Amino acid sequence: MWQDLDPIGRSRATGGYRRFAWSAEDADLRQWFVAEATRRGLDVTTDRIGNQWAWWGDPDGAVAQGRPGVVTGSHLDSVPDGGPFDGPLGVVSSFLALDELRRRGLTPTRPLGVANFIDEEGARFGVACAGSRLLTGVLTPDRARALTDADGVSMAEALRTAGRDPDALGPDPETLARIGTYVELHVEQGRQLALRPDDPTQGGGAVAVGSHIWPHGRWRIDVPGIANHAGTTRLEDREDAMLGFAAAVIAARRSAQRRGCVATVGKVLATPNGVNAVPSAVTGWLDARGADADQVRGVVADVTEVMADFDAVVGEESWTPTTSFDDALVSRVRNRLHGIPVLGTGAGHDAGILANAGVPSAMLFVRNPTGVSHSPEEFAEEADCLAGIAALADVLADLTEAS
Amino acid sequence: MWQDLDPIGRSRATGGYRRFAWSAEDADLRQWFVAEATRRGLDVTTDRIGNQWAWWGDPDGAVAQGRPGVVTGSHLDSVPDGGPFDGPLGVVSSFLALDELRRRGLTPTRPLGVANFIDEEGARFGVACAGSRLLTGVLTPDRARALTDADGVSMAEALRTAGRDPDALGPDPETLARIGTYVELHVEQGRQLALRPDDPTQGGGAVAVGSHIWPHGRWRIDVPGIANHAGTTRLEDREDAMLGFAAAVIAARRSAQRRGCVATVGKVLATPNGVNAVPSAVTGWLDARGADADQVRGVVADVTEVMADFDAVVGEESWTPTTSFDDALVSRVRNRLHGIPVLGTGAGHDAGILANAGVPSAMLFVRNPTGVSHSPEEFAEEADCLAGIAALADVLADLTEAS
Repeated sequence: MWQDLDPIGRSRATGGYRRFAWSAEDADLRQWFVAEATRRGLDVTTDRIGNQWAWWGDPDGAVAQGRPGVVTGSHLDSVPDGGPFDGPLGVVSSFLALDELRRRGLTPTRPLGVANFIDEEGARFGVACAGSRLLTGVLTPDRARALTDADGVSMAEALRTAGRDPDALGPDPETLARIGTYVELHVEQGRQLALRPDDPTQGGGAVAVGSHIWPHGRWRIDVPGIANHAGTTRLEDREDAMLGFAAAVIAARRSAQRRGCVATVGKVLATPNGVNAVPSAVTGWLDARGADADQVRGVVADVTEVMADFDAVVGEESWTPTTSFDDALVSRVRNRLHGIPVLGTGAGHDAGILANAGVPSAMLFVRNPTGVSHSPEEFAEEADCLAGIAALADVLADLTEAS
Repeated sequence: MWQDLDPIGRSRATGGYRRFAWSAEDADLRQWFVAEATRRGLDVTTDRIGNQWAWWGDPDGAVAQGRPGVVTGSHLDSVPDGGPFDGPLGVVSSFLALDELRRRGLTPTRPLGVANFIDEEGARFGVACAGSRLLTGVLTPDRARALTDADGVSMAEALRTAGRDPDALGPDPETLARIGTYVELHVEQGRQLALRPDDPTQGGGAVAVGSHIWPHGRWRIDVPGIANHAGTTRLEDREDAMLGFAAAVIAARRSAQRRGCVATVGKVLATPNGVNAVPSAVTGWLDARGADADQVRGVVADVTEVMADFDAVVGEESWTPTTSFDDALVSRVRNRLHGIPVLGTGAGHDAGILANAGVPSAMLFVRNPTGVSHSPEEFAEEADCLAGIAALADVLADLTEAS
C-alpha cells in the first residue's frame, strides 16, 4: 500500500514530496484513496469541499439513532519537498487498523470512517487545514475561492480544473454530524518521544496521545516597491521592496526569541524576481506559534510595527487559538493504551479544527527519531509505525465498542 | 512591426514582458526576427550560440577584403515583467534605419548587419549578456551549459528543448570577425536626458551617444539551512536560511550607500518555500555597480564577510570591468549627429562585451521621460524613437560610407 503511494509527487531532485491540493498529484492520491477503500468494501463519499470519506457501516443510520460514527484519518497532501510520513502515515494506518480489527474478527457496533482531508498543509493557497476549516465553516467559501497560488491561480479555478464545482464549497453540517468522535494518528514532529527512555512508565515509547495544540497562525506580509533598473537607479530614488522584507524576517525572529514563541518566514515571492530589477513587490509569509496566545499576537504586533515604516501590510490568513483535545476522550485513549505519554504540540492538525468545532477529538503521535519533519529526511521506524497501527486499532475497537 | 512584437510574452496580469532565453516566447521572437529580415531580402544566419544575424551584403567577402561590415542591433529578451523598449527598440530601430537608408536611395559600400543577441538580460540563467559573452569567449561553454534556471533546468537542457545542440556552444571567431563596427541603440535607463533642456547645445535632446559603462557584476549568495517544521522546532535548534538571506540584503544596501555604489538583491529563491517549513536553503542574487571598480568589489567583500557568519557562499556569476566605448567611433558618431550629448551608464549591454573583445563599438540612447526601466512602465515618446531611428540611419550611412 505504502509502495503505491511512494512515487506520487516525489521530486527526483530533492527526494521530497510536492503534493499540493487539487494538483495532478493530488488527483492520483485521491484515486489511491478510493481504490484502497473499495478494495475493503467501504463506501466512499466526497463532501461539498472535497474531503474524502470511506465508511464501514451506515453513517446516516447511526446519526438517526443518535450514535454517530467514529472517524479516523489524516491527509495526503504535503508541504513543498515534505517527507513521506506527515499525513499519509495517518491515512495508511487508518486502513491498516481497520484491517487489523477485521483480522481480530471484531465487528464495530458503530460505523467506522476513514477520512482524507484535502489541503491540510495549505502549501498551495496559504491556508492550513482548508478542508476541515471549510467543513466546519471557519473558512468562508468566498474567502477560500479567492485564495491564489504562486502562479496566480485561484482556488476556484483550481477546483474547476480538477473537475469540481467551486460554488459547492461551504460548511457541510450533514457530513460533520456523522463524526461522533475523531482520532488522528500522525508522525511526531518534534523529538519529545525520542528524547525519553523507551518505556511508557517513564513517559517514553513508540506512541503518545496528544493533549493540546498551541495557538498558531499565519500572516501575509506585502511589501510594496517600485520596479526599476538595478544599475541606473540611484539608491535614494528607489523603493526597494526587498529591504522591507529583510526587516520583517529579522523583526520576527527577534520578537519570537524575546517572547518565547517560534516564528518562521519560510516562503517568499519577489516580483518581478529578476537579478537586475529593483523588486516592485515582495510578499513573505509569517508563521508564528507559542504556548501563550498573547505572546504570539505580540510577535505579529512587533512585526506589523516595523512594517509600517515600509508601508507594508500584514494580513492574517489564519488564526487558531489553543486547542485542547477532549479530556474524557484523551483519558479513555490513554487508559486503553496502558498509560502512554501525553504530549502537546506546536503543529496544527485537522483534528484541532474538528475539536474547536465541538467534535470530541484526539490524536496519536508516532515517535520520530530525529524530530525532523516537513523535510525529505522525515522518518519513523517501521516497528514504531506498526505499534501506531496496533494502538489505533485498539482505540477504534474501544470507541466503536466492537465485539 | 512593433504591433507584431507587442503581444509576445506579455503578461496579462502585470502588463510586463516575460521573454526568457530559449522559451516558447523566445522562439516566437526569433521567428519574428527571421520574418522581418526575410521581408527585406536580408540573409539570416545563426551563430554557434544562437545569436541571430541578418545581413545586407556579403559579410565574408568583406572580411576577405579586410573591410568587415557594420552591425547594429540589440536583443529581444526581457527581465521578468520588463518593459517593451529595453532591447526590442534597438532591433526594431535597426530594421527601420536600414529601411530609411534604402528610402534615401543609399547603397552601403560595406555590408550592414542587424543582430539579435540571445539572453542579454540573463533573466533565466543568471548571466547577463550570455550570447555575446559566449561569442567572445568570456563565458565558457562548460559553465554556460551547467547554468540552471529557477526550475532546475540547465541551459544545456533548454537548448535541447529549443531544438539546438548544446555541444555547439563556444566562441565563434568567424562570426566575430564579421563585425567591423558595432552600434547599439537602446532606450535610456535613467533620466539624464529627461532632466536636461530639450536642446543638444545644452546637453539635452532626444538622443545621446554612450561613452562608457560602469564596472558591474552579479554574485550568487547561497545560504544553507536545515528544513524543519515551523511549529515544532525550537528556535535554538534551527538553521534558518532566511535569516542569513535577510542579513545579506541589509549588508548590501548599507555597504553600497557607504561606498557610493548601487547594490540590488532583486531575486530570491527559497527552498522548499513553504509557509510552515523552516527553509533548508535560500539563494539570493546580488547586482552591484558603481563608477569605481574597487568600491564595487568592496561592496561584495562586505557582504561576503557578513555571510561567513551564516556559512553562506558568495560566488561570482559575472564581472565586467569599466567599459569605454571606442573614442574615435564615439567622436565620429557625435560629430555626425551635430554634437549630441555624451552619457555614461550603469547598465551593461552586449555593446560593452563586444567593446571589451576589441570590436569598435558605440551606443545611442533614446530619451526616457521617467527613467523607469525593467518595469512595465518603461516608456519613450514616439517622436524620440523616430529621432533615434533617424540618428541611427545617419550613423550607419556614415559608417558604411553609403552613397
